[in-house]
Amino acid sequence: MPKLVFIRHGQSEWNLENLFTGWVDVNLSEQGEQEAKEAGRKLKEAGIEFDQAYTSVLTRAIKTLHFALEESGQLWIPEEKTWRLNERHYGALQGKNKKAAAEKYGDEQVHIWRRSYDVLPPLLSADDEGSAANDRRYANLDPRIVPGGENLKVTLERVIPFWEDKIAPDLLAGKNVIIAAHGNSLRALTKYIEQISDADIMGVEMATGQPVVYDLDDKLNIVNKEKL
Amino acid sequence: MPKLVFIRHGQSEWNLENLFTGWVDVNLSEQGEQEAKEAGRKLKEAGIEFDQAYTSVLTRAIKTLHFALEESGQLWIPEEKTWRLNERHYGALQGKNKKAAAEKYGDEQVHIWRRSYDVLPPLLSADDEGSAANDRRYANLDPRIVPGGENLKVTLERVIPFWEDKIAPDLLAGKNVIIAAHGNSLRALTKYIEQISDADIMGVEMATGQPVVYDLDDKLNIVNKEKL
Repeated sequence: MPKLVFIRHGQSEWNLENLFTGWVDVNLSEQGEQEAKEAGRKLKEAGIEFDQAYTSVLTRAIKTLHFALEESGQLWIPEEKTWRLNERHYGALQGKNKKAAAEKYGDEQVHIWRRSYDVLPPLLSADDEGSAANDRRYANLDPRIVPGGENLKVTLERVIPFWEDKIAPDLLAGKNVIIAAHGNSLRALTKYIEQISDADIMGVEMATGQPVVYDLDDKLNIVNKEKL
Repeated sequence: MPKLVFIRHGQSEWNLENLFTGWVDVNLSEQGEQEAKEAGRKLKEAGIEFDQAYTSVLTRAIKTLHFALEESGQLWIPEEKTWRLNERHYGALQGKNKKAAAEKYGDEQVHIWRRSYDVLPPLLSADDEGSAANDRRYANLDPRIVPGGENLKVTLERVIPFWEDKIAPDLLAGKNVIIAAHGNSLRALTKYIEQISDADIMGVEMATGQPVVYDLDDKLNIVNKEKL
């Protein structure tokens, strides 16, 4: 029975400062590093042996993966990074303080941006400073798919092709897979595999640095779910 | 013009203790970490932008790569790990103190094992404790190719197929490639691309943590070689 493990990256420097982060490539905080190492110790204790790792192209998720794998003695397993597992792109809100945004746009509007399934944040254009269009790591993407801002719906629509093309085939081949990613890319995967409604998914929170372990059957139905 | 960069991993815990290491998966020492970070700062200063990273399945090389990439702001580039870039397997000498080995087998014999191109060290059998045959990371290899000990010749013969299949095609496609590996797997690559004789190669030493940068032409001839 294949195992699928999700880890949301540990605390980042911008979580600490209460800024909208999205695709901005901020580092883990010291606490975030400790959370990732602790996740690794729990995985080791649980005796889970991985065959494949996936993560985003953002440093905080990659480092979470590396710390967790190293601590569990599995830094050597194959790893693939993809923009499809990136955090939700927060558009023009990226880099803005959450409290300041609430003062500028109103609490209700910011709440809608944060908690609605299909409302887009204010978008960045390709010319804006900080646009992903100017970042070398997205240079091989069709410019039409480099987002200027995403809601969870759009995030899910670009995460699921990676599930279909890579993650699901690995699991169907009996591999144990670990995915270190972000609040919203993992929320998208959780919605998909647990079949959670659009209305309910925004209320689902995943703790940072806490491995979530799924045991799956050979049709990828969930047999057991456990938080370590 | 593609760039090819070699980095030999920084000091390991067993370098410190003067033990034969080979495929034993020891960690970097604190100094080794610092060397790797310093390599990353030099790569950043040199402005080299990588498209692909390769490393072995041994923690000390993987961590050297990660520290160097993170420090140069490129932790997000694609990375592939392969046993073919592992250190030379040191057979039954692995874990032995170099001085104690010299006392047991004689200085001259140990010198031959360390410095001859094609003399094998005493071999480990698959049943021996510490044999790679019992290590999960080599479980997908044909047991006939899991070594019980290697000389540089054998090391080169298993490194070069990886050059042919992955590294050379990347370079021919114009990609800049970084390889974080080991004294002898990098010696094998150096011998091959610089066409160094069997007699001369054992005298070639590469400093730990110092990036070696090759500029190549479109036939992969060396146009320039620089140590950072």
